[in-house]
Amino acid sequence: MKTKVIGASKVFLCNENFDILENGAIAFNEKILEAGDFQTLASKYQNATFYEQRVLLPSFINPHIHFEFSNNTTAFIYGGFDKWLTSIMQNRDTILQDNTQAIKEAIKEQLESGVGSVGAISSYGDDMIELAKSPLKVLFFNEIIGSNPSAVDFLYSNFLERLEASKKLATKKFIPSIALHSPYSVHYILAKKVIELAKRENLKTSVHFLESHQEREWLEKSSGWFKSFYEQTLKLKDAKSLYTIQDFLALFEGMDTLFVHCLFANKEELQSICKSGSVISCPRSNRLLNNKIFNLDSIPSEKISIATDGKSSNNNLNFLDELRYTLFAYNTKDPLELSKTLLLSSTNFAAKALKLNNGILQKNKDADFTLFEIPNITASSQEALQFILHAKKKEKIFINGEEF
Amino acid sequence: MKTKVIGASKVFLCNENFDILENGAIAFNEKILEAGDFQTLASKYQNATFYEQRVLLPSFINPHIHFEFSNNTTAFIYGGFDKWLTSIMQNRDTILQDNTQAIKEAIKEQLESGVGSVGAISSYGDDMIELAKSPLKVLFFNEIIGSNPSAVDFLYSNFLERLEASKKLATKKFIPSIALHSPYSVHYILAKKVIELAKRENLKTSVHFLESHQEREWLEKSSGWFKSFYEQTLKLKDAKSLYTIQDFLALFEGMDTLFVHCLFANKEELQSICKSGSVISCPRSNRLLNNKIFNLDSIPSEKISIATDGKSSNNNLNFLDELRYTLFAYNTKDPLELSKTLLLSSTNFAAKALKLNNGILQKNKDADFTLFEIPNITASSQEALQFILHAKKKEKIFINGEEF
Repeated sequence: MKTKVIGASKVFLCNENFDILENGAIAFNEKILEAGDFQTLASKYQNATFYEQRVLLPSFINPHIHFEFSNNTTAFIYGGFDKWLTSIMQNRDTILQDNTQAIKEAIKEQLESGVGSVGAISSYGDDMIELAKSPLKVLFFNEIIGSNPSAVDFLYSNFLERLEASKKLATKKFIPSIALHSPYSVHYILAKKVIELAKRENLKTSVHFLESHQEREWLEKSSGWFKSFYEQTLKLKDAKSLYTIQDFLALFEGMDTLFVHCLFANKEELQSICKSGSVISCPRSNRLLNNKIFNLDSIPSEKISIATDGKSSNNNLNFLDELRYTLFAYNTKDPLELSKTLLLSSTNFAAKALKLNNGILQKNKDADFTLFEIPNITASSQEALQFILHAKKKEKIFINGEEF
Repeated sequence: MKTKVIGASKVFLCNENFDILENGAIAFNEKILEAGDFQTLASKYQNATFYEQRVLLPSFINPHIHFEFSNNTTAFIYGGFDKWLTSIMQNRDTILQDNTQAIKEAIKEQLESGVGSVGAISSYGDDMIELAKSPLKVLFFNEIIGSNPSAVDFLYSNFLERLEASKKLATKKFIPSIALHSPYSVHYILAKKVIELAKRENLKTSVHFLESHQEREWLEKSSGWFKSFYEQTLKLKDAKSLYTIQDFLALFEGMDTLFVHCLFANKEELQSICKSGSVISCPRSNRLLNNKIFNLDSIPSEKISIATDGKSSNNNLNFLDELRYTLFAYNTKDPLELSKTLLLSSTNFAAKALKLNNGILQKNKDADFTLFEIPNITASSQEALQFILHAKKKEKIFINGEEF
């Protein structure tokens, strides 16, 4: 691939100091060769173009999306996890029907909002083909779910089929991975099997964890709303939680698992997660389903990534919107410092959590970056904040050095 | 004007119970004649049209906007009122230059986001002509500002000139009114004069009040950041606050004044305001300038309206965006109940605060209403919430029965 140079008024390197190059640039082919001053790089390499009143930064990583639910607008009930899950059980089938077009639009929405990499939670495999042929860099999390012991064998073989199908599509941009649905919904026989498999084959793992207070009550006491959910909806009598919280966490010891939500995890549990794993927070989804957002001060920022979740629990999948709403949701934090942290969470920190070779404009990293027009950005000394406030859609996006 | 009937899948009356008519309609000319079932009204009147998967509701009232600052994107500093006001003093002139086109776009943004009535704070009169000829229903608040005693006469006569000019443009849709900038910036000689004038001529009044902790410290102790602002920026030596908080509030006793922001007002002060006045809250502006949002539980909901403020302290003036960000900013409140309250604050409650004859779909009210497409709204039992989540731009807007 021919080397190119792209420059912009402001280049957000997304290194840990959040350094910004004024009139900066990167030289790149599939990888980034160099980041630096535009004039210097333009003299050194061919094919240099500069963009005024633009911000150049690493493409975002949206590490938790359910693409298969992209048909949804109004079918699910918000305001309580119990009501939401009940509405999911009732209306899921309608929403999942004919979802290919909606999945395509959701992929486009990722690219338009500057997302280059995603963590896609695939419950049924409906999104596999579209994601594999999309420009996105995809961690494709084949999901296992099921708590009924009599269905364990069937569910595992169905899971294996999907995993095998995804392996056949594997490329450097499409990475087969494993999601366990949650501690309240995956039988321990299944959990143990897939975790062993993940360890053996070195596959990335993701799990919904302590999203609701109802889940916490169930795991701690086998009581509360999940008791009736098990008995009435899943028709399982005398159901009890299959794990304590500690037992469940112990399954993931030493693994770099992505723990999604963690709204009701306590300090010790979060510390345990952060030893080798990390947390993914979905602010809009959490607000709509549980009237709560993750305490950003409870763990180091480097351990937190931001995601949109699926349209099953969000009004759209626009990553820029997610960042903007997050800025206003955490409304007591200094807006400039929060903006820098959110941009790092969406690039550098997420890349580390997902073990992707991107998220920072630095030599030898994948050339995954995005260009946005931000009118009058040169007039600002609060670039990260003004970027989040004003970024509308990508002007250019490159993944592995290729423009899409 | 010929009577028409417009019907929609869901009609939000915006009465205090937040009643919703399924397949409802209104019959109207300049005024609303009747709200009810579409079929019934269609049989009774001519010219009936029904819109599927649409929501019909009163047009929004955006009671506090500085249209004159519509040129701004990145010129001002956020994260602290002190830093922001310093940047306003430094960069104001640039932003105010050639602002006519930006004012026109801001007016369009109001209509597109379903706003039919505004409270426009006019510091210089730059927005007077454009607002007077716009479709909007306008409370045009001519603003008085100035704390230097030697400038009082000049400032008052300049204010009177603008007020007189606005009176010449007065119509039933363009209502000359008075804004006092704030207790830290208006000399008491000016304040007393304009308040007397407002009482004598029965003009509506608006005032910024306790927006920052710096303002509170200044009013209470004549110390803190405003001390240096007075001495260094305004070149006034030995400056002291011209009011105590109580003295300032006493000026407005018995008046239906709009108190804007009130972030740092205590319970007693808020109670005093609510006796005959009301509070306007600008959530995004407050978050960006003061890292704080108004406590919605501190006064009755009926006393709170929601506004965008100007582009001097917001990323846009889209009223639907303001409602959406507010929904996510108050993230511990039940989202459906909060949505109903926010919609009432933006219609019924704001109309009462501004003494406008609209904000509710009810016989004899002005026919000020808007139609929005909300895909699959008929599938939802949480209509107010889904409306806020999914409303993008108005399909139709009527003001005094005329479509714009």
